[in-house]
Amino acid sequence: MRENISWQDSRAFLEQLPRGAFLTVSHGGRLNTMTIGWGSIGHIWQRPVIMVMVRYSRHTHQLIKDAPDFTVSLPLDGNLKKELGQAGTKSGRDMDKFAELSLAPQPALKTVSPVIKGGGLHYECRVIYKQEMDENALDAEIRDQYYSDGDYHVLYYGEIVACYRD
Amino acid sequence: MRENISWQDSRAFLEQLPRGAFLTVSHGGRLNTMTIGWGSIGHIWQRPVIMVMVRYSRHTHQLIKDAPDFTVSLPLDGNLKKELGQAGTKSGRDMDKFAELSLAPQPALKTVSPVIKGGGLHYECRVIYKQEMDENALDAEIRDQYYSDGDYHVLYYGEIVACYRD
Repeated sequence: MRENISWQDSRAFLEQLPRGAFLTVSHGGRLNTMTIGWGSIGHIWQRPVIMVMVRYSRHTHQLIKDAPDFTVSLPLDGNLKKELGQAGTKSGRDMDKFAELSLAPQPALKTVSPVIKGGGLHYECRVIYKQEMDENALDAEIRDQYYSDGDYHVLYYGEIVACYRD
Repeated sequence: MRENISWQDSRAFLEQLPRGAFLTVSHGGRLNTMTIGWGSIGHIWQRPVIMVMVRYSRHTHQLIKDAPDFTVSLPLDGNLKKELGQAGTKSGRDMDKFAELSLAPQPALKTVSPVIKGGGLHYECRVIYKQEMDENALDAEIRDQYYSDGDYHVLYYGEIVACYRD
């Protein structure tokens, strides 16, 4: 059961994101999901947009760097808490997270990338902009704290083409 | 009267932003405000963050490019509607918008840049990251529609250090 939501009604998005969300990408016959805790939601280029971040070292980087779309699924009410923890510490290079963590991909309405079933919010996003970070323009404390190994994020801006609650 | 709000309670922010908000910057003894309609709010680098965009051609660009902070003031309930329209079409190069549009800057709690009085939401932000846009990584339709003259935006990411309603 899908219940459409307004992208502007984002309180649940911003409250759950720091606790964990699934970023899911399917591209070139490969599918992976990873846990994210950082991102944003806004109105850019006259469109509703979600921004997500993926480090170069991640298996997801290999998929999303050329993908046309991604999805963000945010379990609410404590759903899939264990799975969020595991999907954030294990790499899709070494395992099929869907099989091993019993995660259920569900076909999306408008994107190739599926969403993750499990009682929450789902955002289907078409990539409209992406950018590598510029380390010289970043606050020094943040740089030292999160990027001392040089493993920066790439920022992906996706137009929200569908959003709903299951 | 200030009433503290939660940065995550962002529905009013995202509903008003497309209708107009004031981006205000004070730096080097100069003060200006401009109307913005694009931006985002999120959780990045373990901090609440607002991202705003300023084109190179804007007078505000000359102030914000080296400024340590900025504020975003969003009038609600139709307040300052006329002023939002005017502040978006006139340049601070040619006029003092505060005097000519009867806008009232109000000292901020934690930033040098003041907020704009007028019945709405206020976000005080410390610049922690900024980045020029990469035209080659942008969706072609968006590029043609908004940047055909090459006047791109610079993106400013500000940590929300205070947010409240007046």
